[in-house]
Amino acid sequence: MPHDESNPSVPAVSRRQFAAIGAATLAAAHTLHGSAHGAEAAAGSPLKPGITLLFQGDSITDAGRSREAAADANSQPALGNGYAWLAASQLLVDRPADGIKIFNRGISGNRVPDLAARWQAECVDLKPDVLSILIGVNDIWRTFDSGAKGTAEEYEAGYHALIKQTKEALPSATLVICEPFVLRCGAVKDEWLPKFAGYRAGAKRIAEQAGAFFVPFQTMFDEASKIAPPERWAADGVHPSNDGAALMAHTWCRVVDGGGI
Amino acid sequence: MPHDESNPSVPAVSRRQFAAIGAATLAAAHTLHGSAHGAEAAAGSPLKPGITLLFQGDSITDAGRSREAAADANSQPALGNGYAWLAASQLLVDRPADGIKIFNRGISGNRVPDLAARWQAECVDLKPDVLSILIGVNDIWRTFDSGAKGTAEEYEAGYHALIKQTKEALPSATLVICEPFVLRCGAVKDEWLPKFAGYRAGAKRIAEQAGAFFVPFQTMFDEASKIAPPERWAADGVHPSNDGAALMAHTWCRVVDGGGI
Repeated sequence: MPHDESNPSVPAVSRRQFAAIGAATLAAAHTLHGSAHGAEAAAGSPLKPGITLLFQGDSITDAGRSREAAADANSQPALGNGYAWLAASQLLVDRPADGIKIFNRGISGNRVPDLAARWQAECVDLKPDVLSILIGVNDIWRTFDSGAKGTAEEYEAGYHALIKQTKEALPSATLVICEPFVLRCGAVKDEWLPKFAGYRAGAKRIAEQAGAFFVPFQTMFDEASKIAPPERWAADGVHPSNDGAALMAHTWCRVVDGGGI
Repeated sequence: MPHDESNPSVPAVSRRQFAAIGAATLAAAHTLHGSAHGAEAAAGSPLKPGITLLFQGDSITDAGRSREAAADANSQPALGNGYAWLAASQLLVDRPADGIKIFNRGISGNRVPDLAARWQAECVDLKPDVLSILIGVNDIWRTFDSGAKGTAEEYEAGYHALIKQTKEALPSATLVICEPFVLRCGAVKDEWLPKFAGYRAGAKRIAEQAGAFFVPFQTMFDEASKIAPPERWAADGVHPSNDGAALMAHTWCRVVDGGGI
């Protein structure tokens, strides 16, 4: 990828968009949203004043959130201690007067069918303007550690049905599909990786078909693991450390708040 | 501050610049760099391919970094566990092919005179293209807990001399002056605040006079303390938690990498 920092004729916004995430990711993101410049001009950030933002997913999203406080928007206990809380804190500090309401309904251990079973009450009824979903690692994990049946194709089909239902119920919502990820340490064995690639590809196709933002967490953690050991980012290969969660929040905000790369 | 999200005639880049940090900060930043749009077009991010970035300061910057590894660019042990490391990890993950070299030379307990005493060896000789400094909390703290003499005026005068020396030795370096901050908890007593305001104002004037980026950490933590207790961000009121460091890294990158708001 050329570094357009060296070329003053390239608009600064384009330079910044290029810099937002790595080259591999950029290529993927272009597929979804057209040129960086065009998408920014056309769409801008969906995190507009007054919106409701909902994070959904599994333990990575849950991150120890309080069920008792769940109805309190923008409350740290309700948002947990993970990337959702850190992204929320960045957004809320950046926009103190915008009246954004942020909720978290991630639940540890969830797979796509678990989301589907509680989707009306814990997604649709909350009427999010922006809905961010991170799901998939348990869908594959249980096939390795608990003998569960399940394939990448079934994951994608279930996820597709969930998104179809969501778009029918919330036609104006902006969707954010987060790439499921693993790091090569802890519980994650080499045998996971070929099969997991199918789950990641499925999530990306879901994003493409839905016109959703796609947050490339696997690409991000692959890059991060070149500058510090994977254990630094997620000791067990699945659940992010504080540093891993901070990096996820950064990338989530760059992708979504950056206006659609 | 008007929300230009509602006005499609306002360029998206301007909208994003407005969103980068809160309204109070924006006003301050404008003083330094002119209009958001103009500064971005004129300057862009100083974090260009091949640059050397140096973080300097006190314990907040130090954050447990390894002295033995200090010469290793982009090394987590050398960068510590604080905002400098988290900002570095974000930049390095965003720009995997850019060849940026990042160092940390913060030392716990340092005040402005301590920086001055080691400035040639631990700043100038490293020839940073971008130099970020966070200093000031010990300059005031020691006047409360150890009977040290010292005023905001002396802090500013010493800081001014340090920056003058830096600009003479490194005329092409981009300077980043970080606002010293305290949170109202832990070791920080109410009696600190009126005096500390003088130190913060001094750091801001230094940034203005030097044409430096100014990273408004006090404004940021004031906003953060509205969404979670100050102890969440810095248990003793001075040293950031993981969440506090993550928020600092976010704001540092928004201000500096955003291209000069």
